[in-house]
Amino acid sequence: MQFTAQQLSVLLNGTVIGDPNTKVHDVAKIEEAKEGQLSFIANPKYTSYIYTTDASILIVNDDFLIEKEVKPTLIKVPNAYSAFTTLLEKYQSLVQRKVGIEAPSYIEESATIGEKPYIGAFAYIGKNAHIGKNVQLHPHVYIGDNVKIGDNTTLYTGVKVYHDCEIGNDCIVHANAVIGGDGFGFAPQSDGSYQKIPQLGKVIVKDKVEIGANTTIDRATMGVTLIEEGVKLDNLVQIAHNVVIGEHTVIASQSGVSGSTKIGKHCILAGQVGIIGHLEIADYTIIGAQSGVSNSVKEPNTTVLGSPIMDLRHARRVYVTYRNLPQLAKKVNDLEKRIKELSANSDKSHQ
Amino acid sequence: MQFTAQQLSVLLNGTVIGDPNTKVHDVAKIEEAKEGQLSFIANPKYTSYIYTTDASILIVNDDFLIEKEVKPTLIKVPNAYSAFTTLLEKYQSLVQRKVGIEAPSYIEESATIGEKPYIGAFAYIGKNAHIGKNVQLHPHVYIGDNVKIGDNTTLYTGVKVYHDCEIGNDCIVHANAVIGGDGFGFAPQSDGSYQKIPQLGKVIVKDKVEIGANTTIDRATMGVTLIEEGVKLDNLVQIAHNVVIGEHTVIASQSGVSGSTKIGKHCILAGQVGIIGHLEIADYTIIGAQSGVSNSVKEPNTTVLGSPIMDLRHARRVYVTYRNLPQLAKKVNDLEKRIKELSANSDKSHQ
Amino acid sequence: MQFTAQQLSVLLNGTVIGDPNTKVHDVAKIEEAKEGQLSFIANPKYTSYIYTTDASILIVNDDFLIEKEVKPTLIKVPNAYSAFTTLLEKYQSLVQRKVGIEAPSYIEESATIGEKPYIGAFAYIGKNAHIGKNVQLHPHVYIGDNVKIGDNTTLYTGVKVYHDCEIGNDCIVHANAVIGGDGFGFAPQSDGSYQKIPQLGKVIVKDKVEIGANTTIDRATMGVTLIEEGVKLDNLVQIAHNVVIGEHTVIASQSGVSGSTKIGKHCILAGQVGIIGHLEIADYTIIGAQSGVSNSVKEPNTTVLGSPIMDLRHARRVYVTYRNLPQLAKKVNDLEKRIKELSANSDKSHQ
Repeated sequence: MQFTAQQLSVLLNGTVIGDPNTKVHDVAKIEEAKEGQLSFIANPKYTSYIYTTDASILIVNDDFLIEKEVKPTLIKVPNAYSAFTTLLEKYQSLVQRKVGIEAPSYIEESATIGEKPYIGAFAYIGKNAHIGKNVQLHPHVYIGDNVKIGDNTTLYTGVKVYHDCEIGNDCIVHANAVIGGDGFGFAPQSDGSYQKIPQLGKVIVKDKVEIGANTTIDRATMGVTLIEEGVKLDNLVQIAHNVVIGEHTVIASQSGVSGSTKIGKHCILAGQVGIIGHLEIADYTIIGAQSGVSNSVKEPNTTVLGSPIMDLRHARRVYVTYRNLPQLAKKVNDLEKRIKELSANSDKSHQ
Repeated sequence: MQFTAQQLSVLLNGTVIGDPNTKVHDVAKIEEAKEGQLSFIANPKYTSYIYTTDASILIVNDDFLIEKEVKPTLIKVPNAYSAFTTLLEKYQSLVQRKVGIEAPSYIEESATIGEKPYIGAFAYIGKNAHIGKNVQLHPHVYIGDNVKIGDNTTLYTGVKVYHDCEIGNDCIVHANAVIGGDGFGFAPQSDGSYQKIPQLGKVIVKDKVEIGANTTIDRATMGVTLIEEGVKLDNLVQIAHNVVIGEHTVIASQSGVSGSTKIGKHCILAGQVGIIGHLEIADYTIIGAQSGVSNSVKEPNTTVLGSPIMDLRHARRVYVTYRNLPQLAKKVNDLEKRIKELSANSDKSHQ
Repeated sequence: MQFTAQQLSVLLNGTVIGDPNTKVHDVAKIEEAKEGQLSFIANPKYTSYIYTTDASILIVNDDFLIEKEVKPTLIKVPNAYSAFTTLLEKYQSLVQRKVGIEAPSYIEESATIGEKPYIGAFAYIGKNAHIGKNVQLHPHVYIGDNVKIGDNTTLYTGVKVYHDCEIGNDCIVHANAVIGGDGFGFAPQSDGSYQKIPQLGKVIVKDKVEIGANTTIDRATMGVTLIEEGVKLDNLVQIAHNVVIGEHTVIASQSGVSGSTKIGKHCILAGQVGIIGHLEIADYTIIGAQSGVSNSVKEPNTTVLGSPIMDLRHARRVYVTYRNLPQLAKKVNDLEKRIKELSANSDKSHQ
């Protein structure tokens, strides 16, 4: 797909400086851009690239001062970064958005499907499922019985949504994520074996949530595992039964949250964090990578780190001593010797 | 689906107190139950809820003493918790159990399939595969050549079982789990590259095992990767080639067991545990969350924690000192100063 | 499938000692081999097994000295281990290699497919996809639009490759791995919500790479997430957007590499390692299990361990002290008491 500077400037309400017929077919970072590519300069520290880049078109801020002749065609806009992102979004939805129902797919008669769907080949839609409008169900997606999918939501290839679960509007779920598998609940028996506790609840994912590839969110034992509006989960994340993740909380890859824990709003969990069950994590908590959380965080706006977690500042001081433990131990041994000598002297002086 | 108090009491051999025609269509915890829902009280600490709950029907113990009038219809049984669980199980199997073969599915002619199967659309069954009776293969399940699946086993959507692997009776495998992928074995070559070591063994999963979503169990290099009876694996667990997991061992989410390690019976691994290869873990071992196991655990009934692991009691004492490391370092520095002063004094007193 | 000693010796250019008509139908380790199985002895410490094994055929080195009568038929070759591995490879490709296109599958007209493909049932091939020759696409594989797959590459069941990504020649990707999902990039907004940053780059996987089951490799924001030649990734590994993994680097299960980090050639990451974003890891770096890497490793050939990482030697000394922290704390308390006594004495002696 090709665009001219003229076409892009119309889309962005910008002004063309240079040849309006210059064409681009791809985008790149300013430091890597080549002929035929579009890029942008928003950060002043990249300014000098304007004179060396091979990009064909550059989006720049209105107040950008051009000191000497430049090769690329420029499009001036009030906010270059925002304009570039907007363009990328439009481009992405243009390129990736599909419409229509590919064959063979499997759709139960009792399912209802909104307007302008994309249903890929080998997608499966169960009984009484309710699919909103403009929904994209890529190939190999599985929608169980009674599932609800909101408007404008995209489920990429291989996503599995178990029966009765609900996903809101404007969500994105990446390939092979599993929503609504049984919670991990077993009652120990007197003979040392375990009896399965039936998992009869469901998962509700609210609007504007993004869920990464191969991530798993278990259904509640009873009631709901709840992912609130705007939450972003990375790949390979584990959310156990009856967990609640508050609005606009972000969880990085390979983190796990155990059963019945409630995480507040606007929290950030870095990668490989583990949180045990039945805790409460206050709003705006930040948890460092690989942390192990075994106690609730009660004070909002806390940053914690470590396994088990400590306040960030304290954790850093602990680490400094930790790294120097062999020296500390040596110092203690030296002191011990010195004290023995002193004792000997002291004994002598008291004789 | 709706049930009356009368119908439920027959199922449970219980006694109805109140209107036998009261209807419920759902279940909930006593503290959250609403009209039209069924709940139970087993734990005396929830007794007071009986007077405030909006549940329509409650299951209670025979010896439950009703002090004043209650709104819900009651069903009295010898053991309310057990009766409730039994009911949930019956309900779950009623709701989720499917029968029949959906089209299109792919079944090799040489495969044999027992009576009353459910084979979802887009399921794949390879050559000479042997599927027991009452088996549920949900949509997008893949059964490789020569695979054996026992009676009453359920494989949820997207489960992949590579060729030659065996799964026992009464097992449950959750969505997108992978059983029988190649073990991670490579022989380093003189040029720094790696040559793949063919992985010709298989995976055997015994009876009554439950395996979580997106969990991976690799086939043996030669011989068998063995998951013994009653084992429960959570989501996103990694079991490497030639591992043995003993009977009724439970492994929580995101834990990983490296090649050829043997874990005993009745062990419990909490979340995000890592175990290196070629170890033996004794029966009844408990391993705390995020532990790193680099040595065998030889004594049964041991509880360990930490990375690397320590005996739980010792680990807790280590953590207490660890958290106070900055104070310990300060104390040592203070002692050092104090000793310098003493030395100076001592020197003076010896002059 | 059955082979005679005669047939195997021809394949291996070996010499039969014993009955050339002896048949085997399976392989096993020497210590576990039974009648009808083939095994080998390469390591002298297994020599004694030759007189006790029930294996029907054994591959041994040319210089193997037989001191008394042996039961199995022998095949003598220059290098028994190498001959055995070669045989296994041939056997594995014989058993697993499939040819043909199973129905139903979904192949866009604009896709091109090389000679001798295997395309399993329910596989999906998007627009303008380019599939090389001798490629194996197992059931439920998804190949997005414009994807390129090189010659002799095998994608096992359920592998998902998003649009525009490229996989080289002689690669193996295991079940349910996801290649090319969106990178985890969001711009925080003033109201505390996040705006998705479009992920327009792709993933390029070079030749001879193996990727484990349920592993995820995200596409670049712009540009390329690059997996160089000969890289081996285990199961459940996370590779974030814009990461580069150098040639012949090996990453064990459940490790994660954050955005834009560059890992050198010939590195080894053990299991459950986490690396934060925007770092550089030098060639030949070895990173111990569960390590947390928050700084670049600049010196090639370094071995590191710990969270955060330390030089291996130092890390081991730190651990020794760490395990003995309660004793160290006690020692310091004892010293403190001793000094108080000394001070008191010293004060007395100065009175």
